[in-house]
Amino acid sequence: MDYSTNDSKSTSKKKVVAVVGGGLVGNLNACYFAKRGFQVEVFESREDIRQAKIVKGRSINLVLSHRGRQALKHVGMEDTIISKGIPMHSRMIHALNGTQSPIPYGKKGQYILSIDRANLNKELLSGRRMKFLIPMSPGEHAHHEYHLSEEIQADLIVGCDGAFSAIRKQFLRQSRFNYSQTYIPHGYLEFTIPPINGEFAMKPNNLHIWPRNTFMMIALPNLDKTFTCTLFMPFEEFEKVTTGDKVIEFFQKYFPDAIPLIGAEALKRDFFRLPAQAMVSVKCSPYHFGDKCVLMGDAAHAMVPFYGQGMNAGFEDCLVFNEIMDQLNEDFSAVLPEYTRVRVPDDQAIADLAMYNYVEMREHVNSKWFLFRKNVDNFLHIIMPRTIIPLYTMVTFTRTRYHKVVKHWHWQDKVRKDIVHVHSTLFKGL
Amino acid sequence: MDYSTNDSKSTSKKKVVAVVGGGLVGNLNACYFAKRGFQVEVFESREDIRQAKIVKGRSINLVLSHRGRQALKHVGMEDTIISKGIPMHSRMIHALNGTQSPIPYGKKGQYILSIDRANLNKELLSGRRMKFLIPMSPGEHAHHEYHLSEEIQADLIVGCDGAFSAIRKQFLRQSRFNYSQTYIPHGYLEFTIPPINGEFAMKPNNLHIWPRNTFMMIALPNLDKTFTCTLFMPFEEFEKVTTGDKVIEFFQKYFPDAIPLIGAEALKRDFFRLPAQAMVSVKCSPYHFGDKCVLMGDAAHAMVPFYGQGMNAGFEDCLVFNEIMDQLNEDFSAVLPEYTRVRVPDDQAIADLAMYNYVEMREHVNSKWFLFRKNVDNFLHIIMPRTIIPLYTMVTFTRTRYHKVVKHWHWQDKVRKDIVHVHSTLFKGL
Repeated sequence: MDYSTNDSKSTSKKKVVAVVGGGLVGNLNACYFAKRGFQVEVFESREDIRQAKIVKGRSINLVLSHRGRQALKHVGMEDTIISKGIPMHSRMIHALNGTQSPIPYGKKGQYILSIDRANLNKELLSGRRMKFLIPMSPGEHAHHEYHLSEEIQADLIVGCDGAFSAIRKQFLRQSRFNYSQTYIPHGYLEFTIPPINGEFAMKPNNLHIWPRNTFMMIALPNLDKTFTCTLFMPFEEFEKVTTGDKVIEFFQKYFPDAIPLIGAEALKRDFFRLPAQAMVSVKCSPYHFGDKCVLMGDAAHAMVPFYGQGMNAGFEDCLVFNEIMDQLNEDFSAVLPEYTRVRVPDDQAIADLAMYNYVEMREHVNSKWFLFRKNVDNFLHIIMPRTIIPLYTMVTFTRTRYHKVVKHWHWQDKVRKDIVHVHSTLFKGL
Repeated sequence: MDYSTNDSKSTSKKKVVAVVGGGLVGNLNACYFAKRGFQVEVFESREDIRQAKIVKGRSINLVLSHRGRQALKHVGMEDTIISKGIPMHSRMIHALNGTQSPIPYGKKGQYILSIDRANLNKELLSGRRMKFLIPMSPGEHAHHEYHLSEEIQADLIVGCDGAFSAIRKQFLRQSRFNYSQTYIPHGYLEFTIPPINGEFAMKPNNLHIWPRNTFMMIALPNLDKTFTCTLFMPFEEFEKVTTGDKVIEFFQKYFPDAIPLIGAEALKRDFFRLPAQAMVSVKCSPYHFGDKCVLMGDAAHAMVPFYGQGMNAGFEDCLVFNEIMDQLNEDFSAVLPEYTRVRVPDDQAIADLAMYNYVEMREHVNSKWFLFRKNVDNFLHIIMPRTIIPLYTMVTFTRTRYHKVVKHWHWQDKVRKDIVHVHSTLFKGL
């Protein structure tokens, strides 16, 4: 064997990969690079997440589905993570009158998982230390902003430092870096539904949804038999609700069945505990800079949460990068541009889909519409199972590339329209 | 009169407006604020533009049309500027075989003007000093990056500091600021067509266009009887042209009639004088921060140059802001949000139109297509003068709000399609 080559597998000195960001995607990525034999250092500016309280305003639970599971599986962590998740087989739609109607996510046996963010990161961190022998890095406790390549010495810097990425800020200084950040007019607040007599207060194996056009609330089950409720509504509506009495009045009008579940006193208190949190969609391109630096996860593509794919897309980034590392023999100068070429259109497609869902929801989703639309899709799938595959199924239960999912969906949409002879004109009555 | 009010017109102490950026929009804005009685200071980090050579890579000439003229008129500068411009009544389309075909911009008597950037700024600066008594400000020669509100003491800061605005960078640190920067794959280079025997080498009262699908060249006349040629093509194509011989080969293939006009030796030399320059489209929202700071011109909405509206939109910003100052009695806390509300959709519409023109041009504009399409529009305008107004006319020769222009155009497009029974499907044969 020739020890003088630069092939990382054959050199005596290991190549160093610096992973910036010790959140979900950073920790998973650390495992991927360690598995390949790189020396991995993780840089995290926050406190050790295992000791830290939940980051202010970050959502407490996450949805794990096929893409995320496949990425975890590759580093042997799928089973552990799944054992701490709660399967959700259906949406449970809450009508204004309190009626609950389930809509399955897919076929029998298909489900998504409600996962606790803090616990997931703890498991990933443990897996990283136990399975892949990646110690806490010297920089992992440092409290400072990172400056690309000034402070970090490594063969590759992987920016997994989230929606407000410091690594990405350095990319903005380069010429011809495309970037967008879009805040939506909605904010969110979280509430808790406590257990009743030690049991879940609602059916646990569902993602509960209260669709009310402009407003929406969802609830996800947790292992401690609580539910985390998230209320989405425009900031200007949040601003109108200024007193505890107005909170109750608001819930009585839109979510009456949730008042006894959350509790009137808790509602009044928690509504004002934190300001409503903003949601941002971030896109950029390229994802790489030279053969030295690459962005993954929210640092590359933060998305609004309305498709439950943010974490799954971030985890799939690791898997896709790993596939390209195999194809191109770990040559960063070839791998990084190829990763940009392959992954940008997919991440942008899912970010757009999440935004599309937001816009659609905001404009005309109430419980009746939701039930009708999902049932039409499911009906068409049953009569033409190979032609009409619900969009949700392609996104959630396959690894079909996101941009191909969108293409197929547009094509299906055309077929569906031909079937029902609906010809809508984009620009009405101007 | 009560001198204790905060109304700037009635207080004894003048309100101070800091205009950041002494380029075209900055200097015009300075005049607007001075005309209203504000004390104006202009901050510019480059050398005095009257002495400075043309900024490296900035285009030499600009197109002035109705909106820009109206804005100049309000501060009494229209006539001076126009007297230094060259009217262009038609596009002159150069086919590959050398045939030249004119397409009028509008009706008889309608024209756009080719204006020299350096001269225009000099005139604006002189007008500012002579007519409005705004001296060179203390900060106008300083060479440093501005930090919002740290260094500049003023009642209002107006960021007119261009596509790479330092003021806008401060906005990015605020929550819920929407921002995008998009570089297009094309770059540009400039050449000069010298006079022949002291006269213009081509017809002077035209904007000459060589449309070649992916490649395009244009030429605008200058007062010194030269033309400035701008070649647009993808960066990857620029990279293929590596030697003087390849330059000539390239021009022989696509722009043979331009070789004798520019001169083979000048072509070989100037092709490599500067690297091809990038073009960026920038959008953001809001344009204001509190009642203290507002963005105008390229700082708010840099656009690709394919509609000749960049400067005109920037000048119209000043005019629109001024109209809102009238309506809302110079109350910045009301004027700034209103300016954002009114102007963002218009600027985004023209930035989108410019990008649309770029995409359309890149995909299928050659001289035949260009002639056909423009003639169809003109024909429809003749038979239905009130229903079909060419898009170009609405943009260039009216002050119809840009977003309304786009709405009307979409509507017309529908009418046009109904007329010719063309039903195109967006997603073909997937």
